[in-house]
Amino acid sequence: MGQLDRDRQVGCELCNHEGGLLIGRTALLRVIRVADPDYPGFYRVVWNRHVSEFTGLSIPERVHCMEAVAMVETLMLDRLHPTKINLASLGNMVSHLHWHVIARFRDDKHFPQPIWGMAQREASHKDADMPALIAGLDQAIHQALGNLTPP
Amino acid sequence: MGQLDRDRQVGCELCNHEGGLLIGRTALLRVIRVADPDYPGFYRVVWNRHVSEFTGLSIPERVHCMEAVAMVETLMLDRLHPTKINLASLGNMVSHLHWHVIARFRDDKHFPQPIWGMAQREASHKDADMPALIAGLDQAIHQALGNLTPP
Repeated sequence: MGQLDRDRQVGCELCNHEGGLLIGRTALLRVIRVADPDYPGFYRVVWNRHVSEFTGLSIPERVHCMEAVAMVETLMLDRLHPTKINLASLGNMVSHLHWHVIARFRDDKHFPQPIWGMAQREASHKDADMPALIAGLDQAIHQALGNLTPP
Repeated sequence: MGQLDRDRQVGCELCNHEGGLLIGRTALLRVIRVADPDYPGFYRVVWNRHVSEFTGLSIPERVHCMEAVAMVETLMLDRLHPTKINLASLGNMVSHLHWHVIARFRDDKHFPQPIWGMAQREASHKDADMPALIAGLDQAIHQALGNLTPP
């Protein structure tokens, strides 16, 4: 068995499933896209090994993890021109380290509240170009992961 | 005028105020504690210079920033024994880079929801020892900031 198998936690969703549409991976982490119709630009950086807290990673691992988060943020800013990027590592329900990277728009469902807050309006951000933008973003993230060297 | 003055944004709360009880600082960032009776273990790592997104920092600055976040997390885990740590950089309302570092407990007001979500119970986590624990944590964070070398 490989390292992933040894460290896998019984019943942990992110030990046993990718956790969304797999966009790409390095040796230590993967990026998935979340299928949320209200938030088309919603990705997660998921650490492969089961650790519950950010400080469960070594310093070089933390740097690698946050550079993956920063790469997704940079590509999102360039391609989607969101009002704001939201970053979060919560894990109250699934305590397997994963970073939410979410493009927020002034007219999205919860803005300026966090997406976990109270809805502010019914309509969420709709853009006819969004599917094509997301497809391009997926591809750009996939390629950029290839250039992200794990420690 | 110093760098902080030149970069200060008119009307930005975190350019013009510490943003909470100042616990300590490095040359580039500060740690403040948020006065929230439901969340005694709630700190923010605030970048001094006005940048709105995490990627507004250089890579060495990002590392310094996240090592401050990790330091607060480590000391919180050691001293408060929370169920989970929540980390987030949102900035939808105050778009000046700041990281929330929040100790979460199974019986706190929103658990397992994010603190911005729907309240799950009226009573939040109460612990007679908490004020003393927080005072000790404040002091430990203050000291640890002195050992955190900016890039």
